[in-house]
Amino acid sequence: TLQHLFKEIFKAGLELQEVDHKKELLVSRKRRPEDTVISVKGMEIGNGNPILIAGPCAVESYEQTASVADAVTKNGVRLLRGGAFKPRTSPYDFQGLGVEGLQILKKVADEYNCAVISEIVHPQDLDMACEYLDIIQIGARNMQNYELLKAAGRLNKPVLLKRGLAATLDEFINSAEYIMSQGNGQIILCERGIRTYERATRNTLDITAVPILKQETHLPVFVDVTHSTGRKDLLLPAAKAAFAIGADGVMAEVHPDPAVALSDAAQQMNIEEFQRFVEELVSSRFLKINQMA
Amino acid sequence: TLQHLFKEIFKAGLELQEVDHKKELLVSRKRRPEDTVISVKGMEIGNGNPILIAGPCAVESYEQTASVADAVTKNGVRLLRGGAFKPRTSPYDFQGLGVEGLQILKKVADEYNCAVISEIVHPQDLDMACEYLDIIQIGARNMQNYELLKAAGRLNKPVLLKRGLAATLDEFINSAEYIMSQGNGQIILCERGIRTYERATRNTLDITAVPILKQETHLPVFVDVTHSTGRKDLLLPAAKAAFAIGADGVMAEVHPDPAVALSDAAQQMNIEEFQRFVEELVSSRFLKINQMA
Amino acid sequence: TLQHLFKEIFKAGLELQEVDHKKELLVSRKRRPEDTVISVKGMEIGNGNPILIAGPCAVESYEQTASVADAVTKNGVRLLRGGAFKPRTSPYDFQGLGVEGLQILKKVADEYNCAVISEIVHPQDLDMACEYLDIIQIGARNMQNYELLKAAGRLNKPVLLKRGLAATLDEFINSAEYIMSQGNGQIILCERGIRTYERATRNTLDITAVPILKQETHLPVFVDVTHSTGRKDLLLPAAKAAFAIGADGVMAEVHPDPAVALSDAAQQMNIEEFQRFVEELVSSRFLKINQMA
Amino acid sequence: TLQHLFKEIFKAGLELQEVDHKKELLVSRKRRPEDTVISVKGMEIGNGNPILIAGPCAVESYEQTASVADAVTKNGVRLLRGGAFKPRTSPYDFQGLGVEGLQILKKVADEYNCAVISEIVHPQDLDMACEYLDIIQIGARNMQNYELLKAAGRLNKPVLLKRGLAATLDEFINSAEYIMSQGNGQIILCERGIRTYERATRNTLDITAVPILKQETHLPVFVDVTHSTGRKDLLLPAAKAAFAIGADGVMAEVHPDPAVALSDAAQQMNIEEFQRFVEELVSSRFLKINQMA
Repeated sequence: TLQHLFKEIFKAGLELQEVDHKKELLVSRKRRPEDTVISVKGMEIGNGNPILIAGPCAVESYEQTASVADAVTKNGVRLLRGGAFKPRTSPYDFQGLGVEGLQILKKVADEYNCAVISEIVHPQDLDMACEYLDIIQIGARNMQNYELLKAAGRLNKPVLLKRGLAATLDEFINSAEYIMSQGNGQIILCERGIRTYERATRNTLDITAVPILKQETHLPVFVDVTHSTGRKDLLLPAAKAAFAIGADGVMAEVHPDPAVALSDAAQQMNIEEFQRFVEELVSSRFLKINQMA
Repeated sequence: TLQHLFKEIFKAGLELQEVDHKKELLVSRKRRPEDTVISVKGMEIGNGNPILIAGPCAVESYEQTASVADAVTKNGVRLLRGGAFKPRTSPYDFQGLGVEGLQILKKVADEYNCAVISEIVHPQDLDMACEYLDIIQIGARNMQNYELLKAAGRLNKPVLLKRGLAATLDEFINSAEYIMSQGNGQIILCERGIRTYERATRNTLDITAVPILKQETHLPVFVDVTHSTGRKDLLLPAAKAAFAIGADGVMAEVHPDPAVALSDAAQQMNIEEFQRFVEELVSSRFLKINQMA
Repeated sequence: TLQHLFKEIFKAGLELQEVDHKKELLVSRKRRPEDTVISVKGMEIGNGNPILIAGPCAVESYEQTASVADAVTKNGVRLLRGGAFKPRTSPYDFQGLGVEGLQILKKVADEYNCAVISEIVHPQDLDMACEYLDIIQIGARNMQNYELLKAAGRLNKPVLLKRGLAATLDEFINSAEYIMSQGNGQIILCERGIRTYERATRNTLDITAVPILKQETHLPVFVDVTHSTGRKDLLLPAAKAAFAIGADGVMAEVHPDPAVALSDAAQQMNIEEFQRFVEELVSSRFLKINQMA
Repeated sequence: TLQHLFKEIFKAGLELQEVDHKKELLVSRKRRPEDTVISVKGMEIGNGNPILIAGPCAVESYEQTASVADAVTKNGVRLLRGGAFKPRTSPYDFQGLGVEGLQILKKVADEYNCAVISEIVHPQDLDMACEYLDIIQIGARNMQNYELLKAAGRLNKPVLLKRGLAATLDEFINSAEYIMSQGNGQIILCERGIRTYERATRNTLDITAVPILKQETHLPVFVDVTHSTGRKDLLLPAAKAAFAIGADGVMAEVHPDPAVALSDAAQQMNIEEFQRFVEELVSSRFLKINQMA
């Protein structure tokens, strides 16, 4: 019918404009068709060789961090995570060791020859943090803290940006654009589960976000299997799904003794569990043993 | 502290009871540790050999259905889907061919030597439908239509039960229990995406539902990649993720000419696209060419 | 800019068509500007005089039902609810007294001179139920059970249709259209909370659904304050908000002894609480004492 | 049964501890039963006399702001809003006039003898902003920007804290505690709609959040009817519901010429509409004409 024809024309017009608008973004694949590859201490992130990031939820002490770094690097993983500034729902929960935590990470990184990533929450801490960290993390709660994003955009340091807990993919992409618009294009996007009505998992892992973000942007895309599921028994299946659908990397939490962890005790693997986790990913061909380029 | 100790005791007690309650369900893996395997025309569903279900959203004619059946079986798929009774949001949209659609499916199944599955929406149609179908589908909108579930539980015919669009996994499992409590344990659970705030996809594929349902029940678990994503470009990545995370099967829509389909035009593959879909799943080792036991 | 102009034209075109489509619906206010007013045993529902529906979650016995009817009618309320067919998440929970429950309701309605409403879940029970009930309720789980809707559309009896737990307003309106398209236009729409991430309440009362439904359709709109909040302490504030925003009626649960109720014990008012509930609504001018036309 | 008894004991124990934990919060009503009343330029916020906050989405010029201030104060409203630092999804959208916007607000406040509120997004701007503003707003995107909250907690200035777009009430209350834990107890909580699957409104107004927040805390609770609904036609009904359910105030957007507004054009009232809005609220007794204490 004529009406139907008109409708299709209208739709096509709207989609065209939408596409135009997205094409303008610096992070858009329409603007830059090649994948962004980020070099971190001899690793290449986003070059097709999948990466693991592992480490404790929070840096609690030198000993705890070193013991995880030892296990992590022995399993071929060269990117260590650990929270120093911890945004917690309650002001009375453990808030992290702060700068001391960053110093521990740096020391451990040097000793175990690995790269380190940690979350920064205040714009004024970013320059200082660059001395200690190889990658700056911006957490889910701060995905629309545009002052922090803009400040991170003025650094010359890779930034891992987590999706906000109820952010649309469009908002997520625009938050990355806040960083890149200031000059810093070394951005890793990280899906970490979204908030839905379902309570069987801590959040709902939006797995198709991975191919969509890969299509829409030229940036590497990671999946945080710990925060998306909140369940140790789901880390391995979720990691397999993430790699199968095209994720450039997976982030998971490991703690030498999860039962006494100062935060997120229930969802961190112990070292033995982590070893099996890596072995399974390698034996099912989702991960290579050596993550160096 | 003493308070903490008490808290742990309370928690343990509550979890114990929760476990006890779930153990009682007939569909629970605690009650029956071995996997349920369902035999359909020489196929074994749930035996570890992944299955594809493919076919048009709606049965529109003998020719359309036969042309899909031809393509589907040539690609090694032996389970054909096609809607005869279509629950549509608007009463004025195409509601399916009804019994005529079932007859077409039966004819095509005989000619192409494949099994057929279709949705039934009225309790009184179930017995009639058993003459035409190898598997009865109960759709997302009817997941809590308990009269339909109970009637399906009195059949001797496999039932594929789709998750409701905002159902929790616990509600989903209980709906399966409604069927099994009436005697019919041949149940396939099918994740088909849940309703969330995100609009980049039609629904949000809750991928970790698969391992959770496999843990909690002994039933085969499928993923409908068409309705969960609503996007043709995501069918292949979603299917890979589904198989990687342990799904027993994947359901996808194929139509000889999607552009003129009477329903869901935008999300159905054409025959050529379907062929590539199968090839990619086979070459990435997620699917074997021959789905017969 | 030219592009902007085009965009506006496109938008206008789309909206025009959307409007056209909605105008065609029988339930649409565009099709019929005057309010539908439904007469039930001397009450006029939807004429601007707010109505209360009150009664137990489930009919458990003649005594229990009569004792609520006594209290309810003494407070000027003439519309009694009570579940006879109870759709429950678990097949092992109390499923209601069935036909016996309807008979109790009828008896009590005659004795206390009030109207009665109860949920029907199977299409084949509808005709039978019309002998006992003044209003047929179709519950949230069955909002898209189109076979039930169509069957209800062939009755000459008012139907109260509850919004599905994750239904959009557009889907809700279309479900009403399923009923009206079969000839029955005596439909009351009932907002009963939607499923969201928030857990402080059982569901999230979508209060602006009321004015939207009043704008889009010519049907009376009610709010179920019990199921939307799931909290006794919120029934009164929610009822005030519902009336303030223009609801034609409010539904709330009352039980002579909530602690021993066979379902939903935590959220039902006892008789004394109900009395205060009515008094407060009357004294704050949201409710008139006499609900007769 | 014995098991049931145990369950009740467990539950009671858990609830007791939950209560204990919440009692400890400084913002908790358990800790301080009396309402917090906040004095702003001769107004008392939270004393039972409902308040309106009105003004443009963004401060665009002196003339625009003064013309709204004129209309607003003529209608008895003495609290003017206007965005100077605008957090926008895209970095390329209008980001507000910044300090210049604050200066305009201050000038207008002096001329029209009203109080002014505006959002601040960077911790380092807070002290400066106190010179221009009577109330500091912290927006939904920054509800868990804890560095900003802690810095606001060190001010001696009222803070209006908006609920995050997918924040639970528990997280919202804890964010207020972040402010109060630093010494500043002059906090207004503002419900502004939550993100759900429904698209008929911009967000879903969680109206029962109002009585829950009033119960759980001793702080004044407002409702932003503009951002929760995103629809001009729903501002009045939503405001009535908000006042009926016990809100201490309502915030709404007014612009001299919404069609040319630099942000949120579709949802702002023009001056004539605002006048009717106030008149309706006064005539239905939800608002007094004079908002001075």
